[in-house]
Parts: sequence; structure tokens; C-alpha cells
Amino acid sequence: MRVLGVDPGMTRCGIGVVDGAPGRPLTLVHVDVVRTPADAEAGDRLVVHADALAHAIAAHRPDVVAVERVFSQHNVRTVMGTAQVAGLAMVAATRAGLPVALHTPSEVKAAVTGSGRADKAQIGAMVTRLLRLAEMPRPADAADALALAICHIWRGSALAALARGSAQARLQGAVRMVR
Amino acid sequence: MRVLGVDPGMTRCGIGVVDGAPGRPLTLVHVDVVRTPADAEAGDRLVVHADALAHAIAAHRPDVVAVERVFSQHNVRTVMGTAQVAGLAMVAATRAGLPVALHTPSEVKAAVTGSGRADKAQIGAMVTRLLRLAEMPRPADAADALALAICHIWRGSALAALARGSAQARLQGAVRMVR
Repeated sequence: MRVLGVDPGMTRCGIGVVDGAPGRPLTLVHVDVVRTPADAEAGDRLVVHADALAHAIAAHRPDVVAVERVFSQHNVRTVMGTAQVAGLAMVAATRAGLPVALHTPSEVKAAVTGSGRADKAQIGAMVTRLLRLAEMPRPADAADALALAICHIWRGSALAALARGSAQARLQGAVRMVR
Repeated sequence: MRVLGVDPGMTRCGIGVVDGAPGRPLTLVHVDVVRTPADAEAGDRLVVHADALAHAIAAHRPDVVAVERVFSQHNVRTVMGTAQVAGLAMVAATRAGLPVALHTPSEVKAAVTGSGRADKAQIGAMVTRLLRLAEMPRPADAADALALAICHIWRGSALAALARGSAQARLQGAVRMVR
């Protein structure tokens, strides 16, 4: 499974692509941070992010796009721009015919480090180790986007297995009824 | 001046187009409310709004797109979707080469009714009167989008006059320096 993770932000948007499956080694495919200047028009900044996200999806052809779920209780000053860039990622994925998965920051931290309260340094260190990189991806937005992709490879697969299990259970129930 | 106003929202997004200039009668050009079902995928809902906004801009060719400025202290449950649709309106306008203006809800209320604390009914009544309509535009999102457009025609013109004035002042300053 190839996952494109997006750590949305107006000033810096992290994009990380990872190949992998549960129980097997993970592979870094691509990582980038798209920046826009704080003094540019908001519309121009959003267009830069929309184009960069569409380009990354077209270039790396992921199976799914995982985006950080944005909450309004976070930094009030920047959360609107963050939500807007997250929305653009969801539009770009949907236009490419791909499913969108949303994961909360604590889900990502828990999946990658084992603790929902891990700090940026711990996430960066685990991403570096899991992808067997020579050094930590920088800035933190790059590591966060990769962590999102890794989280989805592990959690998404578990959820898919659960869904398969329950489909199988429903099927078995139907078979029993037929008998 | 033709203004396309957007009252952003995930469930209902109001789009209102008004022609006018300060001190002259206003004309309703178009009003619509784009709806998406609450049980659809968020990515699919956002694509519907993105397409509808791009279509309205292409069909009515406004001079400027006025969007409600979204604040995070408002309804926390829906504000992320609202911010995302506002972002899509800004992207659609920018891609069409149009300027984007953001107005706060209280600026819109004050411009249209004279009070920054006006309720939905007062806004609807004033929009109906200003555009000389036979009945109030419904739902409220339709009236709100038209109110945004009217607010921009009046406020935007005042701001543009101020900008012209200050440009003229700078020019006169430059002329004085040359003398």
C-alpha cells in the first residue's frame, strides 16, 4: 500500500509518501514541504498548495491520501488556514479518485511512538528509525507528514481487516440462514 | 461593479451576485444555495462546492468575490467545513484572476442594516428592500450571500476611494518633491 500523508498548514504544508504493509519494512518514496510567504494574498497561497498537492498525487499515485484531522481548539490564529489546506488536500484526492483518511494528531503519535502525547522530537526520531533514514526529516512538518502516512498504513490496514472480518461474519451469518 | 458574495458552509453554501455602485440602485443578478448531504464523504462534498463556485464565477463574471471571514470561536462542530468551503471560494476566485475580499459577519450586518448585531430576519428584510424583491430570499444563506455582495459594493468602494486618495496624496507628495 502506498500512502500520501499531508500535514496541512498555510505557511508550511508537509507531504510524505510511504510504501508499506503491516509487519513489513516501510519505504520512503517522497517527502517535501511546500512553503508560502506570510505576506502573500491568502487566495494565492491556497492556489500554491492546491497545485502542489495535485502534483504530488499525480506524480506518486498513492492508493490513499491521509490528512491530519484539524480541530478548532488548536492555535486559533492559524487554524483556519490549516483547515483550508486540509480541505484542498481532500479535494485533490477526491478529484484523483482516491479515498481520503483523516487521523487525529494523537492517533498519529500513538501509532508511531506508542504514546498519544509524544513530542515532535520523538515523532521525528521514530520516523527516522522506521524508514531507516540517515538523518531526521526536517522541518518537523516533513516528519509529521511521513508519520501520518505510516499511521495510516498500520491503522488503515487494521481497520480494513476489521471491516473484512465483519463482512465475513455477515457473510457467514447469511450462509447459516440459507442452510 | 459586480460582486459575487459567498456565505460558506458544508451543508448549505449561499452564492449571491449583485450589480451596483455606492449611491445607485442595486440589482440582483443571481442567487443560489448549494447543498450537500451530511452523510456523504467530506471530500465529495467539498468537490461539489468547488465545482459550483467555479461554475458561478464563470457564468456571472464578477469583478470581485466577497467571502465571509470565518472565525474559529463560532460553532466549533461545523467551523472546519465552513473554513474549507471558504478556502475553495478563495481558490476559485484566484484561479479566475479575481480579487478576493473577506468581510466579517458584523461588517456585513453593519453595512446592510446599520447594526453589527442585526439578526437573520433583519438582514433578510434589508436585502429584500435594497434589491426590491417581491419576497425574502430563502434560506437565510441566500440572503446572507447577497448581503455580503452588497456590503462589498458599499465598503469596497469606500476602501477603494481611500486607497485612491492615499495614492493621490503620495503622488502629490512626489510632485512636491520634484518641484
